[in-house]
Amino acid sequence: MKVAGLGQSSLDYIAFVDRFPEEDTKAEVTDFTVQGGGPVATALVSLSRLGVKTFFSGRVSDDHAGVEIRRGLKAEGVDVRGLKVQKGGSSQLAFILVNRKTGSRTILWQRPTVSPLSPSEVSPSFIKDKDFLLLDGLMMDSSVRAAKTARAAGVPVMLDAGRVRPGMLELAALSDYIVASEEFARGLKLTPLDALKRLSSLNPRAATVTLGARGSVTWAGGKIFRLSAFKVRAVDTTGAGDVFHGGYVYGLLQGWDIQKTVRFASAFAALKCLRPGGREGIPTLKAVLKFMKSAGARVLAYG
Amino acid sequence: MKVAGLGQSSLDYIAFVDRFPEEDTKAEVTDFTVQGGGPVATALVSLSRLGVKTFFSGRVSDDHAGVEIRRGLKAEGVDVRGLKVQKGGSSQLAFILVNRKTGSRTILWQRPTVSPLSPSEVSPSFIKDKDFLLLDGLMMDSSVRAAKTARAAGVPVMLDAGRVRPGMLELAALSDYIVASEEFARGLKLTPLDALKRLSSLNPRAATVTLGARGSVTWAGGKIFRLSAFKVRAVDTTGAGDVFHGGYVYGLLQGWDIQKTVRFASAFAALKCLRPGGREGIPTLKAVLKFMKSAGARVLAYG
Repeated sequence: MKVAGLGQSSLDYIAFVDRFPEEDTKAEVTDFTVQGGGPVATALVSLSRLGVKTFFSGRVSDDHAGVEIRRGLKAEGVDVRGLKVQKGGSSQLAFILVNRKTGSRTILWQRPTVSPLSPSEVSPSFIKDKDFLLLDGLMMDSSVRAAKTARAAGVPVMLDAGRVRPGMLELAALSDYIVASEEFARGLKLTPLDALKRLSSLNPRAATVTLGARGSVTWAGGKIFRLSAFKVRAVDTTGAGDVFHGGYVYGLLQGWDIQKTVRFASAFAALKCLRPGGREGIPTLKAVLKFMKSAGARVLAYG
Repeated sequence: MKVAGLGQSSLDYIAFVDRFPEEDTKAEVTDFTVQGGGPVATALVSLSRLGVKTFFSGRVSDDHAGVEIRRGLKAEGVDVRGLKVQKGGSSQLAFILVNRKTGSRTILWQRPTVSPLSPSEVSPSFIKDKDFLLLDGLMMDSSVRAAKTARAAGVPVMLDAGRVRPGMLELAALSDYIVASEEFARGLKLTPLDALKRLSSLNPRAATVTLGARGSVTWAGGKIFRLSAFKVRAVDTTGAGDVFHGGYVYGLLQGWDIQKTVRFASAFAALKCLRPGGREGIPTLKAVLKFMKSAGARVLAYG
């Protein structure tokens, strides 16, 4: 099985503290990790860990972060031949301060100055022989081109709708599966349930709105169900959403029904939270299946 | 000319923001730089830029930061054969958040878990053929051994006294030149002037207490003088003290008198502040000499 993904990639510097520092003071970091990030990029890494062949397309600078982003994806077995490297400028990076006591995450991020992929850089051959295409809509023009190419070739498309941006609903309308965040719902000025209904009106095969520790709501075949989250002692929720998307695609590729698919995605994401950073804690298939047997996550029907 | 240095080394991640973030929010970073740090390590880099042959001894882990620390020093021409690499553990690193509007520096730092150098690891040959030895007292036992070896071999010793730590005054008593920070004076519960008098009682050839933007006070040959700082539009003061120490050693190596030496160190450090990070802005000799001609920094005698 082969999954292609097109989107943003970043380098995350994650520091853990026992208290959030006041300005102009010193505070000790108890743990520090540098890991790659980006919605589609981390979803592909999670699929790679499950044994799926993955292919990433996007753009980084040739700066330190860009080199590390590329190296990190390659080390996880992601094919990065579609990841263009631009001379000069800066790649996206984020410095994330996690308060161990409160779980708060303070994010300092640097906007990338490299150009987004242009539609003409989306090679049809990158998409046509794949079993799935993952998009995050962070490079809108090329995402739309990729979604259209996929539809024409019969390749199912999943959109990770993290935030409402111009063109995002149009891109959602070109997608077979839409997994949106709670922030996306807020961006639409809707409750998660109403946002889900709005997304379902775009005629996807299924749509899900994730709610963090409160689980998720999913629409499929005219029905809505809620799934509570697996209870874990989370160390760091960075990348949990991205891993959820990877697990979701994995379930669909296995031909599982939507409830089992969402339940798997949820367990997959929960286990990731046991380790710091977006990628270090991504578990093996065996570990997820074992965890799902032992731990409960109830599916609640909504009529 | 050859200068040896023994001390701590670290990797600094420096992010610039227009406002200090509130906990659990997102803020945009306007600039980001990764540069090596550590008092003696950066002082050696500054001497290296001035054309002096430099040699560093210390210990890092084989982690990402350790690899970058070593690479950064090597790239600046510092001889790192005395920098031991320990398998496992973590090197020292710091995440520094600089508020562009207020100039505040919020420092998140990770304590290194690698062992300090032991005295038996201080090879006499590392010190004996050098013209100067720089110490920061961050690995006390090996620093004391190094200072004693240097004295026996007639190699002058400069101590960068950043903070009062156990054994620091004993190490200062073994040093020919003592350059202390204002924080060191506070640690002694003394005013800078009284701290300077206390240090002069240890019989160095000269002692200086640096006061940041307020300049410095120096004792030499029974006299005390104050030097105001050079006025620059500082972008980042990270490493300014370390560069001051490098400039101080440089002046002494040239045989300049103490006033010219301190004035040079002060100009050298001021120019560094024009660029972000501890090392990027370290100027060339030509640039410092030109700046000193054009810009004033008054020497005030204290009787």
